[in-house]
Amino acid sequence: MSYTVTDYLLDRLHEVGVEHVFGVPGDFTLSMLDHIEADARIEWVGCANELGAGYAADGYGRIRRMGALCTTFGVGELSAVNAVAGSFAEHVPVLHVVGAPATGTQAAARATHHTLGDGDFRHFARMSTEVTCAEAFLTAANAEDEIDRVITEVLERRLPGYLSIPTDVGESSATPPSAPLPAHPGVTNPQALAAFEARVRSLMLPSRSIAILADILVQRMGASDELHALLDATGAPHATLMWGRRVVDESAASYLGSYVGAVSAPGVREPIERSDVLIMAGVQWTDLTSGFFSEHLATERTVDVGPRSASVAGETFAPIAMTDALAALVEIAGTLDSATASPAVAHPVRDQHEHAEPLSQATLWDTVADALLPHDLVLADQGTSFYGMGTHRLPHDVVFIGQPLWASIGYTLPAFLGAALAASDRRPVVLIGDGAAQLTAAELGTIQRNGLGGIVVVVDNDGYTIERAIRGRHANYNTIARWDWPTLANALGAGARTRAGADAGADASTVGLVARTVGLVARTVGELRDALAGAQENPSRLTVVQAVVPALDVPPLLAALAAQASSANARPQAT
Amino acid sequence: MSYTVTDYLLDRLHEVGVEHVFGVPGDFTLSMLDHIEADARIEWVGCANELGAGYAADGYGRIRRMGALCTTFGVGELSAVNAVAGSFAEHVPVLHVVGAPATGTQAAARATHHTLGDGDFRHFARMSTEVTCAEAFLTAANAEDEIDRVITEVLERRLPGYLSIPTDVGESSATPPSAPLPAHPGVTNPQALAAFEARVRSLMLPSRSIAILADILVQRMGASDELHALLDATGAPHATLMWGRRVVDESAASYLGSYVGAVSAPGVREPIERSDVLIMAGVQWTDLTSGFFSEHLATERTVDVGPRSASVAGETFAPIAMTDALAALVEIAGTLDSATASPAVAHPVRDQHEHAEPLSQATLWDTVADALLPHDLVLADQGTSFYGMGTHRLPHDVVFIGQPLWASIGYTLPAFLGAALAASDRRPVVLIGDGAAQLTAAELGTIQRNGLGGIVVVVDNDGYTIERAIRGRHANYNTIARWDWPTLANALGAGARTRAGADAGADASTVGLVARTVGLVARTVGELRDALAGAQENPSRLTVVQAVVPALDVPPLLAALAAQASSANARPQAT
Repeated sequence: MSYTVTDYLLDRLHEVGVEHVFGVPGDFTLSMLDHIEADARIEWVGCANELGAGYAADGYGRIRRMGALCTTFGVGELSAVNAVAGSFAEHVPVLHVVGAPATGTQAAARATHHTLGDGDFRHFARMSTEVTCAEAFLTAANAEDEIDRVITEVLERRLPGYLSIPTDVGESSATPPSAPLPAHPGVTNPQALAAFEARVRSLMLPSRSIAILADILVQRMGASDELHALLDATGAPHATLMWGRRVVDESAASYLGSYVGAVSAPGVREPIERSDVLIMAGVQWTDLTSGFFSEHLATERTVDVGPRSASVAGETFAPIAMTDALAALVEIAGTLDSATASPAVAHPVRDQHEHAEPLSQATLWDTVADALLPHDLVLADQGTSFYGMGTHRLPHDVVFIGQPLWASIGYTLPAFLGAALAASDRRPVVLIGDGAAQLTAAELGTIQRNGLGGIVVVVDNDGYTIERAIRGRHANYNTIARWDWPTLANALGAGARTRAGADAGADASTVGLVARTVGLVARTVGELRDALAGAQENPSRLTVVQAVVPALDVPPLLAALAAQASSANARPQAT
Repeated sequence: MSYTVTDYLLDRLHEVGVEHVFGVPGDFTLSMLDHIEADARIEWVGCANELGAGYAADGYGRIRRMGALCTTFGVGELSAVNAVAGSFAEHVPVLHVVGAPATGTQAAARATHHTLGDGDFRHFARMSTEVTCAEAFLTAANAEDEIDRVITEVLERRLPGYLSIPTDVGESSATPPSAPLPAHPGVTNPQALAAFEARVRSLMLPSRSIAILADILVQRMGASDELHALLDATGAPHATLMWGRRVVDESAASYLGSYVGAVSAPGVREPIERSDVLIMAGVQWTDLTSGFFSEHLATERTVDVGPRSASVAGETFAPIAMTDALAALVEIAGTLDSATASPAVAHPVRDQHEHAEPLSQATLWDTVADALLPHDLVLADQGTSFYGMGTHRLPHDVVFIGQPLWASIGYTLPAFLGAALAASDRRPVVLIGDGAAQLTAAELGTIQRNGLGGIVVVVDNDGYTIERAIRGRHANYNTIARWDWPTLANALGAGARTRAGADAGADASTVGLVARTVGLVARTVGELRDALAGAQENPSRLTVVQAVVPALDVPPLLAALAAQASSANARPQAT
């Protein structure tokens, strides 16, 4: 078989670190899947549905340089588009590859399956342009250039991109890459950087205290090393927004906690709002992470380092890469008298609970937090999980993933699949409400089929408690169909052993990875502790715990945010 | 509480026959849901996820005048958009109501949850314009007019529409409707109709044989009565495309079967292609229903009645409503010497099978067809189910629903929910492959929560056999995670009894509708017969049958279509 456009795409994917492609087959993608199946470097991860595949690719893209999603025209791509939009909102690099009808079929403009029947084959690509940073319609003539252009944009902008590949184009001949993708040219203007440095020095020199507030864009812009150097150089007390918990080590002595505007704990709020100088790194304010924009920070005392610019006391210097601005701050910090270093922060001590205590929002998250280990991969779904964990410190080197801007409930279960395949050295722990988990539960089957161990805690409160907190506390619409989660987990893992047993003739007993799955119900602290201890003893096992809590119990942080949300929803005028 | 915009919307929904609204709650829809919950005329049907809700609303819209779907901004609406696009492709009237952030929140243009964070609140509405026929952004000032305009368009065009309702606008005061929605003015031009009639007479007078080919648009345009009058008046042999099976009575003596172009059975193909006059009613050719456009019909002998025009021997007359054109044909047929009536068609006799025979694509569909009853509601998913049933005649008055143009696998399971609530006097029977069912299985919980009886046959062939038939016969990507369907059905029905038991404090034993669910595995004809007989004896029960067939077995009709699809996918030039 000669070298094709699809081979070129797979070479580029491999070059940027993509070892798994997530999706659901469709007749317009099958020849592409043949190439993937023949490629030892890249594995196809077939998902139960496209939304799950999209979330999995997003989870992968939050760990690796890029995630990859492959769906079929129309029906497949649209089922995934909520996930792609989430990647855009949350700055996650994902390439969405869509298998399209053959060039000849499109030219004939007839009522082809997976179209609206009106002869227009661009409806769905136009929809995707709203939620992607680069799009291409591949032809035999433009394919190599367009693949390079879209992948480069996705990597540089940390946003999703879209490639439409007609079936015949994927199979047309191509020339292998002659060189790696071009490195991104540095964005920083030296004069802008020098001016920034001078302005920073004049602000910081007389200051007696520095605090640092970091957020997710530090990770997205690849500036984590520079941030940590700055934390080391200053020893400054620091916080993150809840979106950006993963960018710092929450076990550090000078870590304060999460800053959530007016809803912050006093021990976080005061140092952040009252320091002589506040350095913000990669902060993006959103309603749910800022207590509905209740942050109270004095611009004249703030250094704000963004992705491609930096401001000092309201004066903006650009273009400056985040990495360069942070490196400059490290250097400046080294030259200052260190009146800035602060004493170690007193970390709050978690309440101790008796074994027999019933699970509640309070005891549940305390018990989960106690069971987390350094280096875990924690995914907390929007709702009581994300906010319940918001006030608990994470152990050293935990990667914490949430989705507070896009806030699409159900995200974390498929994201477990993608993130766990991307970070196979970490133990995945998913924390998710039962209402949320119903949106994406099918991927529990895919997780088992791929032999992934880990923990899934399904918070059983019979519905959408995050919505109950906002409105409809007792309303029927906030309850859900009642599911038996341990039984469900087992039903979806009936053939985890068939992973490598594609041929129908093969004996199921002869094949691959087996994920032993254990499903449990926990109603007390002790039952949950036992379940989590059992999971720790059997790391290759998938443990699904249905943790029963009262339907109307709400973590305090979520209650405060929900009151603000309810008030915002009633508001006809901007405030 | 004063009368609000939401109350106005609900009054109009009720006026057009909407008694159920499908969706998933979100904080931007909660106040709307309060009004629905307070309205005794309209029931909220909370689904596991939005794609399921969208399919359910589509199933409802295929039975009633309109379906209604309610989702939240961004995350919710995008998860449903594949279903809405399917409603567009398949001409199904569905109103998609989206709860949006408050007017003031939108004006502030900040990074609000469920947005991309860029201050643009119109991304998702722009996406929806590609797959809806009318869109409106409600304000307190325009709400009544815009609600009326969009609903009227949806009803007239039989296509989905989109209403964006900011939270504050839904709660703003409104004036109740002073009159019903205006009736649609007839489209027919009397001169065009007279010219059409004259041309028809000149074509039909010398003819010795008439055949009729009908399709789905007859049902969509509300012209079923006129079609049946025409069938009675002519006694003509007739066929439908597979999309339009429901528009005729397949137990009729003069019914031929499905016309699928060159793939048709000879007993269908010859009368349709060789009659002196062929009357086509509401036919839309699509690749999968025409054997990839292999229909072979002589234009000079054809009368083609479309939604708003009619052609005779290639000459088009417009505007003429389908109902008027068909009524004219009935009258003309009554005046002709009836050399046109044909003898009764010999219906093929189904093969008889032994109890012990293993299930296969042949024995499976024969056995299912034997168990169908008059008046059933049969939903056949794209794949072996739709094509496997394609060669089996349906009993009297069966409503047959498939989705051969949009062809989104997994559609029928949620569509069961919507169609069964819309047609509560019919027994629902869903036929779906295991690969397809994984996309939407969660709604098995919603079906049980709503106490719906019926039959779900899950065809267990370990994957996507429709894709295997096209490409990748033995490929790993066409296999799926193995699920235990009977266990799954029970896991998702753990609390069917809690339907009306919203309050967490309520005793589960005190409340409402109980759907007894039975899950079974069938490997032989006898096991399947027993399962279907048990279902017939217990009509209020949900019976889920996992019917095991060989992975590589393909119904003959699907095999022929798949070969054509494979050839089309390799084609760079239009042919």
